[in-house]
Amino acid sequence: MDRFPHMKRALELAAEAAEAGEVPVGAVLVGPDGAVLAETRNRMREAHDPTAHAEIAAIRAACASMGADRLIGCDLYVTLEPCPMCAAAISAARVARVYYGASDPKSGGVEQGPRIFSHPQAHHVPEIYDGILAPEATALLQDFFRARR
Amino acid sequence: MDRFPHMKRALELAAEAAEAGEVPVGAVLVGPDGAVLAETRNRMREAHDPTAHAEIAAIRAACASMGADRLIGCDLYVTLEPCPMCAAAISAARVARVYYGASDPKSGGVEQGPRIFSHPQAHHVPEIYDGILAPEATALLQDFFRARR
Repeated sequence: MDRFPHMKRALELAAEAAEAGEVPVGAVLVGPDGAVLAETRNRMREAHDPTAHAEIAAIRAACASMGADRLIGCDLYVTLEPCPMCAAAISAARVARVYYGASDPKSGGVEQGPRIFSHPQAHHVPEIYDGILAPEATALLQDFFRARR
Repeated sequence: MDRFPHMKRALELAAEAAEAGEVPVGAVLVGPDGAVLAETRNRMREAHDPTAHAEIAAIRAACASMGADRLIGCDLYVTLEPCPMCAAAISAARVARVYYGASDPKSGGVEQGPRIFSHPQAHHVPEIYDGILAPEATALLQDFFRARR
């Protein structure tokens, strides 16, 4: 049985990010019919764009491919807890479900600090499933930062 | 004496947004030497991109033009209080100062709800100057929503 194939793909994308010198985070966006709409990874450094997190890239690519500005019924798989910017973008895009891997005490915005989905200013709150293949996501991040110290 | 010329320009851009059927928010990003790096407005609907807020567009355009992923020493003028997504992007981009117009109780993320800059997960906190030409920004927004009711 192949559990969490989309998260496994997101982990592959995160590993690609690390090879490119980017903080290893990968994302996969899946449509209501199960079709993969976007496979993305962090590209902040190579794109010279501080907003080029994997999740923002996935939302932008999926919306562009659908010609819509909302992702009703879509699922986002991402290897790390979204930061506040990405959590708010997920809400704005009306993503239905978010599956994420590792928690991010330093920069997360879902279960840490600003807790984006816990305020009335979040006009849409997705279903959240955390800890999905978290040890694999954590290992990628730890290896990346260890090699840079 | 011409007070707040960059905010006046941002208000012009907000009015352009309204004419295009977008929620009227405009932004101007100014470099450390006073040069204008980006003039942007909301384009979520026409771009099919829920992340295409004026502030995100300004940060992306300025970073692209500078070939950098940080906007050290730069000032952002925006007609409305940034939402949580934009506030977190402002922090990630290391924008030095944010001047904004109207407060946004419904969707703001600076002085409302998640208060992005008040948590340790915000690794950079800009100087904030609020209420700059706020009546003009509010009037644009009220006219826009009144016409759509």
